Amino acid sequence: MESPAPESLKHTLYVPNRTLMGPGPSNASSRVLDSLSNPILGHMHPECFEIMDEIKQGIKYLFQTKNTATMCISGSGHAGMETAFMNLVEDGDVVLLGCTGLWGHRAAEMVKRVNGDVRYVEARFGRSLTMKEIEFAFEGHKPQMFFIAQGDSSTGILQQHLKEIGELCERYNCLFVVDVVASVGGTEFLMDAWKVDMAYAGSQKVLGAPPGITPVSFSERAIARIRARKTYVKSYYFDALLVGQYWNCFDLPRIYHHTISSTLLYGLREALAQFCAMGRKNVIHRHQECSHRLQCGLQDIGLEMLVPNANDRLPTVNTIKVPAGVEWRKVAEYAMRKYNLEISGGLGPTAEQVFRIGLMGENATYERVDLVLNIMHEAILSTKLKDKSKI
Amino acid sequence: MESPAPESLKHTLYVPNRTLMGPGPSNASSRVLDSLSNPILGHMHPECFEIMDEIKQGIKYLFQTKNTATMCISGSGHAGMETAFMNLVEDGDVVLLGCTGLWGHRAAEMVKRVNGDVRYVEARFGRSLTMKEIEFAFEGHKPQMFFIAQGDSSTGILQQHLKEIGELCERYNCLFVVDVVASVGGTEFLMDAWKVDMAYAGSQKVLGAPPGITPVSFSERAIARIRARKTYVKSYYFDALLVGQYWNCFDLPRIYHHTISSTLLYGLREALAQFCAMGRKNVIHRHQECSHRLQCGLQDIGLEMLVPNANDRLPTVNTIKVPAGVEWRKVAEYAMRKYNLEISGGLGPTAEQVFRIGLMGENATYERVDLVLNIMHEAILSTKLKDKSKI
Repeated sequence: MESPAPESLKHTLYVPNRTLMGPGPSNASSRVLDSLSNPILGHMHPECFEIMDEIKQGIKYLFQTKNTATMCISGSGHAGMETAFMNLVEDGDVVLLGCTGLWGHRAAEMVKRVNGDVRYVEARFGRSLTMKEIEFAFEGHKPQMFFIAQGDSSTGILQQHLKEIGELCERYNCLFVVDVVASVGGTEFLMDAWKVDMAYAGSQKVLGAPPGITPVSFSERAIARIRARKTYVKSYYFDALLVGQYWNCFDLPRIYHHTISSTLLYGLREALAQFCAMGRKNVIHRHQECSHRLQCGLQDIGLEMLVPNANDRLPTVNTIKVPAGVEWRKVAEYAMRKYNLEISGGLGPTAEQVFRIGLMGENATYERVDLVLNIMHEAILSTKLKDKSKI
Repeated sequence: MESPAPESLKHTLYVPNRTLMGPGPSNASSRVLDSLSNPILGHMHPECFEIMDEIKQGIKYLFQTKNTATMCISGSGHAGMETAFMNLVEDGDVVLLGCTGLWGHRAAEMVKRVNGDVRYVEARFGRSLTMKEIEFAFEGHKPQMFFIAQGDSSTGILQQHLKEIGELCERYNCLFVVDVVASVGGTEFLMDAWKVDMAYAGSQKVLGAPPGITPVSFSERAIARIRARKTYVKSYYFDALLVGQYWNCFDLPRIYHHTISSTLLYGLREALAQFCAMGRKNVIHRHQECSHRLQCGLQDIGLEMLVPNANDRLPTVNTIKVPAGVEWRKVAEYAMRKYNLEISGGLGPTAEQVFRIGLMGENATYERVDLVLNIMHEAILSTKLKDKSKI
């Protein structure tokens, strides 16, 4: 008996047009969105390779790196994280995870699966790790790898001291892996100067491309470590030597490794082109100015940032304490229902405790900052009033 | 010293409009392409969940299954293949790989990485496996899993007897994994009736959606096997229980597992909607009629199919012997240069030996069949003439 076609697919696709000011994805520009409707290209066509080459150059500029092993993984930011551990961890390797929020713990879930020996160094709640804390952990654990999210989107913390951590890692002959998904482009990141061995970004944050394709880069030292592995990389799909050969990183003939999504290449290429045209330093400066304006405005309406030290605040994802007597969910629902504006609640260690406001890419403008401030103020007052009227 | 922005990203993106009649990706319809420019949606927005639910229903219809564990992996078809082995193989499991071309060997590369015990049953060149060959291999190897590509795109072989293989697997308490990337929608596939435990499709073949998102489905038996694992699934990103929870397959609250690409969801949703509107049986019939017309036309111009037995021929990817005195590469280049038409050479065991002509989705029409026949004929004559004039 043939199962019939579902009724639901007879309807027309409807996609609302939202202002996405949560922790990501952020809005894409019309240039990026328009590019996505271009015809599909084959994964081995020369024009596809040309776009890939341009993307590589864009990522090198974004990361400030000369690494030849710069490429994209065909998956979301989580796939970038998994690529780090799949390639760079072997059975029993001691992996020290810096934790300033959720992402160190998410990393642990992946490291355990490939039989890494997980250790933690936890920051005090709401603060980035100090060098003293990190050095103490290095002495105790003698790690083969250190991992940290430069920007932890769950807490809104920006990890300081990446340059010093890079030097520490070098002294310990320890690989240095940095998650820059929520931070890169919105704050300074210098992969080579800071001696970072592996970094991965998000396409759908500051860059404003669609999710599904993830820029990654490996240092020469990281690639040498992969080549010296005693065991297979456990994933074919995430094998950096194979993906890198497809991306023409190793002076070897390109191979067919998987069918890349030309659609996602178009969007990322256009997002990187816009980023390059605006200039890295200008974009970073704009994100910082916008976060500063947001923080001042929040203070004016009586709200308090979660992160006490201003230097520890991530400009791209801002975390704000939910004041007593306010239900964050009602505020977020109000903003969404009345203005199609997304602001977000907490995640992991900040669940139920904070609002998260993303200022990334298209949404890192003074106009959007003022918009979100006005709407938050109105939403908080309105939900408070409603609650009072119930008493 | 700041590295400067690359010059290449100052150019305007240019994407040629091609007729993609290789082994995939195939052309997307204008409805699919237009949908890709829709605004980005958050991965936890209710509208996103609704689209995901509609896609699930579409896949269930496409696969003819009632499996609740029907979802998509956020990666290409290779990610679907890896999802099968990551979840369903544990150390030392005997995995019998049916080989009618490249794909059994590609599967081996993945099975080895997760410490499966790889065994092969190879078909005679150009033929699908017989039940006798398969039964003999089962007796010898007593596998925990049997894998086969229903359509092997490298050789153009359609594996017969899937129903009988399903019964055999049941007798041996052996999981039955079928790659339907190149076949589903273009030939009959009945997941439940044939007792298939895991299948994965390609978005960019018959469906004509962009690559980068891969429909997969697990039987209850397969899910029970995953739940009974003694060791972690080695990949977080491909963990079917987590992905399935995000896709609302298990009556558990949806979790944030990764940031799904709303862009790719739109394209796949529209491709499935078109497939449903045309009707599964009609689409299959159309693909078969088109392949038949192509085969007759090829015979008329003196070309011979690689696969001698007509029942073993995959209608979606047709393999044609390169005649003596013809260089396949020159023919393909001629078609591309003069007509922006992609036809492809061989892959793996058929490299340098065949042309591969894809008839999938938008390209499975009589008009396209006649187009490709005319161009191939012209290209072969032209390249032959040129070679003669050199003598």
